[in-house]
Order: sequence, then structure tokens, then C-alpha cells
Amino acid sequence: MKIGILGGGQLARMIALAGYPLGLKFIILDPSESAGATCLGEHLRGQYDDPELLAELAEKADIVTYEFENVPASAADFLSSHTTIYPAANALAIAQDRLTEKNFFHQQNIPTAHFARIDSLEDLKKAMPEIGYPAILKSRRMGYDGKGQFRIKSPEDLSRAWVSMQNTPAIVESFVAFKREVSIIAVRRVNGDIAFYPLSENYHSGGILRVAQCCVNDVLQKTAEQYVTSLLESLDYIGIIALELFDIEGKLLANEFAPRVHNSGHWTIEGAETSQFENHLRAILDLPLGSTKARGHTGMVNFIGNVAPADQILSIPNCHLHLYEKSPRKGRKVAHATIRTDDEKLYSRSLEKLSALAETFDDS
Amino acid sequence: MKIGILGGGQLARMIALAGYPLGLKFIILDPSESAGATCLGEHLRGQYDDPELLAELAEKADIVTYEFENVPASAADFLSSHTTIYPAANALAIAQDRLTEKNFFHQQNIPTAHFARIDSLEDLKKAMPEIGYPAILKSRRMGYDGKGQFRIKSPEDLSRAWVSMQNTPAIVESFVAFKREVSIIAVRRVNGDIAFYPLSENYHSGGILRVAQCCVNDVLQKTAEQYVTSLLESLDYIGIIALELFDIEGKLLANEFAPRVHNSGHWTIEGAETSQFENHLRAILDLPLGSTKARGHTGMVNFIGNVAPADQILSIPNCHLHLYEKSPRKGRKVAHATIRTDDEKLYSRSLEKLSALAETFDDS
Repeated sequence: MKIGILGGGQLARMIALAGYPLGLKFIILDPSESAGATCLGEHLRGQYDDPELLAELAEKADIVTYEFENVPASAADFLSSHTTIYPAANALAIAQDRLTEKNFFHQQNIPTAHFARIDSLEDLKKAMPEIGYPAILKSRRMGYDGKGQFRIKSPEDLSRAWVSMQNTPAIVESFVAFKREVSIIAVRRVNGDIAFYPLSENYHSGGILRVAQCCVNDVLQKTAEQYVTSLLESLDYIGIIALELFDIEGKLLANEFAPRVHNSGHWTIEGAETSQFENHLRAILDLPLGSTKARGHTGMVNFIGNVAPADQILSIPNCHLHLYEKSPRKGRKVAHATIRTDDEKLYSRSLEKLSALAETFDDS
Repeated sequence: MKIGILGGGQLARMIALAGYPLGLKFIILDPSESAGATCLGEHLRGQYDDPELLAELAEKADIVTYEFENVPASAADFLSSHTTIYPAANALAIAQDRLTEKNFFHQQNIPTAHFARIDSLEDLKKAMPEIGYPAILKSRRMGYDGKGQFRIKSPEDLSRAWVSMQNTPAIVESFVAFKREVSIIAVRRVNGDIAFYPLSENYHSGGILRVAQCCVNDVLQKTAEQYVTSLLESLDYIGIIALELFDIEGKLLANEFAPRVHNSGHWTIEGAETSQFENHLRAILDLPLGSTKARGHTGMVNFIGNVAPADQILSIPNCHLHLYEKSPRKGRKVAHATIRTDDEKLYSRSLEKLSALAETFDDS
């Protein structure tokens, strides 16, 4: 069985590493000369909307999946009509547009921050009295890791905010003074079976995820499960999904969802019975889902821009390293490391050391 | 950093899968057109003693290791003088010859069953009064999975036993009525650091390992650690080693050692904090060793000859599948699966189901 993947970065890399034990082979479409995953399968080098390469991918792969949500609509359409693509294109269409996504959350009765559609400075001026200050103006499309966003603190910022959007359609959202950011990773199999991972508590800085920790028995677990279930079922979704949420005094507001394996679920490699990567594959192959139960205390730290030397990382007790084979570059996720142990004190000490090390080498 | 591996079977495959997260690349020398590991690195196809391929391997790899102990002496010599090979050739020379191995155990004050060197039927007849019946005649070299062995029940068997050896040098050993077979997997890093995994309790049938279970806090753990430490230190050994032992009423007798990652340590992928495969790589790269602590209850079952369909295996709770991409063949290890859970009852139930499933598909 051969799995096609759009994108050859670290997510595809970890999917492939989880897939070999299941007897799978991989074929990866990616424009780079070499990306983190291209050494783990056949590499089709070219653009994601190259019709010839897409035809070759559809021909050679039994099932196609992807590691990023900005798959061109033309590619998703082509693959949908020539092969099996999971998650299906309907999830992509929604996740690619922040406005469609927020409206979709509302249709599913999933609360969000206040938001408004912004296509002009006029729209923005009209919307702000209801949205309130501070707020965030975001491009509707192609945003990730805090890119394409402008924080609006007062009416004086409105013009600059709109100019920063360069006339692209946008959405303005109330700034949420959240207690914490969490995400729930869930998975739905072809036959409809669903499983949920424990909530992940996520720490961002500069718009980039820095630390994600597994939260066992969180009081908000059930609510998050209800929300993500309505996404999965209404979309007839297959594969891993990640739903990011803000916790505001015990109430959850949906921020966005990712129709793919997610950085806030990397801790599942060591910290869950079955990783998100393996369960993504089991789901799209219609194989029984693996247990999503947590194993002890687990937290993950990203290395941004630069990674510390391996011997320094691995000298931290119970630390597991995941290098992505990406050359150092400002703001780029180049590696992550995970602490997992049954010993709560050891966990805290090791996570602290790891975070400090990542900060020392940070270039974001 | 590029690691060369002699042999491209399932052990090399699992080494490579453990190595990618550490940022490693692989180059694999194997005579097969395609073997389980050759999709995970550059494949040098040819014989293990091919001088040109060995030169290419030495040139391209930073460090060379191997997945089987029957590496030709000429290959080990060449690699030793042209690159770094771990574990070093001295361990290979001993492990390749059952007589040298048993003598080496004795030098290290590690008890074994009674044994004698056999080069003729005369030798065998002379030795038996001291060895006693039943006994096992084994070829000194190239034996694995019970091959090249003859069980001697009475003096009438002696001629047939010797004929079965086809005039190759042999060793006769007293048959050990053991309570159980155990093995200890240990690892020694370039800097001399040593770590031990919990004992594995192993069930063989037809000379082939069927089930290996992790034994936490075994009463014989310390003794096994002493024995394997003396092997590691006297050989200045680097990498993972496996020492197989018989437990006779609480006394341990050494059977053999393998200078490599070992089938009885496959449970460490899910059942230990760090797998034997990752620790082998950390050891030969002189990186800090990972924790060898057990995580809950873990046991592994081999699939011999044939593997059950993936959906049947994965429907067993807490079961993890490892396919080797080997075509079905009588007596061949084609896959293994591991049960891991913190719940002792669930563990027993799942392991029983998995063993029964493996038996149904067994072709050995």
C-alpha cells in the first residue's frame, strides 16, 4: 500500500516514520530539492498544482493525504476525482478561509470570539464598535505561525492595519484575554469510529508554538470532545484533526482547526499509546484506531530557527529528540524534543531544562 | 551523519527508523534486490565481502554497524582498518564461534552448561560420559534459530549426530532443564557509560523465539547485569549487546550473546523509555544514553512464516504492529507485534489474543 503526501516537511516525515512499521510506502510531492520527508519515499519534485505531477501522484498512490491546509483548490479537486484523498476537500475549503471557518464553527454551535468580515477600511471602521479593542485583523487566507496578522490596540491603528493586509480579504476578531490556549487532537476512521487525545496546553510566543503539554483529566476535555465531534461528523471527516481553543475562565472559544496532524500533538509520539501520526494512517486506511490514552507526563518543546547540539538535548533526563533535517533559518521550526516520564517532579525539572535550552538557541 | 549497516533486514530497518529522528542517514549493504531496510537509505547491493562495496561503504559512512553476527572476518578486518565499526571485530570473532564464546564466558567467570569441543565422532564418544544425556551437538559456526543443531538423547544417537554436522567443527553441550529462558539487553557508549534493560523472558519453539516479555524487578536482574557488564568491559564493547541465559532454579547459565540489537529486545520500542535501536545509535555516536526504564507491562509476539491481516492484529487492544516487508516463507520472521499497557489484566488478555492469532498464521 502506497500513501501519497502533499508536502515533504516534518509532518510528512513523522507520518512516514509511523507508517513503515505498518508496511506502508510513501510518495511525496514537494517543490524543494530535498525536504525532511523526501528521503523516506519517492520524491515528486514540483509545484502542488502541477497537473502532470498530480496525475503521477494519483496514479502511484493508493490514498493521498497532506501535511498543510493550503493545498491549492485545483489540486484538491483533481485528486478528489482521480484517487482517494483524506481528509476530503470540504475540510480544506473551510480551513483555508478564516471567515468560512468561523461561520462554520457558528453553524456547529461552537462558540468563538466576536468576528467580522473585512473587505475595506470602511468595513473595519464599521465593525470595531461591536468588536471592541484590542482586536486582531487577519488575512482570511494563507496565514500561519502569526503571519498575516495585525494587532489593533486603538482607533489610530485602523488605517495601518488595513494597509498591512494589502487589500486582501480579511477578518477582524476580538482579542481574547484567555487563561490558556489548548487544542484537542481527534481522529475519525473511514468506518466512523472516533477517538480523542487528552487536551494539549499550548504556549505560543511571537505567534509560534513553543511548548505543548499533555493535560490528563482536564475539566474541559468533554466540552472540547463535543466540539470536535461535531466538526468530524458534519464534515464526514477522515483522519487526524486539530481544534485550537481558548480557555476563558473555563469557557472554550474555538480559534481554528487544522485538517491534518498538528504540532500540538507531537508529544503523542512518546506520550500516548498510539501517536497522532500512526492514528492518522490507521484512520485513512480504515484500520482499527490505536489507543489515544496518555502515558505518564509529557510535554514537547519546539526548536525555532536553530537547534541545540544533540548531546546537550539528550543529556536531559527522559528527553527524546526529533530533528527535521531543515537548515537553520530565522523563525523556522527545525526540531522538537519531548519529555516523558511517570515521575511528575522529574518531568517538571526536565521540561524546564529543555525550555531553557530551546530559548538559548532560539532565533525567531 | 551517515551510518552504514551490514545487512538490510528487520533489525537494520528498525535501527534506521529510530535513527531518522536523530537526524541520521543510512547506507545499507545487502545482497538482496530489496530488503526491509533498503527503502530507508542508500542500498549497496552485493556480497558482504565484496571489496569494492566495502570500500564504498567505508568511504560514505561515518560509522559502520551490523545487524547479524556472521559478518565475514575479511569484511570486519577491512572496515576496522578503513572506518569506525561498532561493535568492534573482537566481539564478532567470539560470537561467531560457539566454542570460543563458551571459553570466553568461562574466562569471565560466567557459568555455562557443561560443554566440550568436538572435531570427530571419537571426540563426541569421549566427551559424553562427562557431558551426560540428553545433550545437544551444535556446529561451532553459522547456527541461528535452531539450525545446525542435533539433540542427543542416548548413545545410539551419537553417530547420526556427528554425521549431521557434515564434518564441521562442533561443540557438545549438556541439555539444560531450565525453568525459563531470559535475556538481558545492555548498551555501552563510546565514553564507557553502560545501561541495562529489564530482563526479557523468552519463549522459544522449534528453535525460534515466539514471545518475549519484559520482567520488571526480576530477582535475577542484578546477576545478569554483572555478567553482561563483564562482557562489555572486557571487550571494550560499544553498542547494544544481548546475553541469553537459562534460569535453573534461580541460577543463571549463559547460553550465547549477540553483538547487536536482538529480537528479545523488540518490546523496548513501546515498552521502554528509549528503544534498543535508538540506544544502539546513541551509544555508537557517543551521545548520552536514553533511559532504559520499562513503561508498564510489555510483551512481544513474533509472526513466523506468515502474518495475520493488519486489521485483526490492530483490533487487539494496545497492540502495535511491526511489519518487516518480507514475503511469507516457512520459518521466516516476517513481523512482530507488541502489547503495552499499564493495566495488568488488559495486558494478559491482549497478549493471549495476540499469541493465539500468531499461532493461527504460524508457518514454521
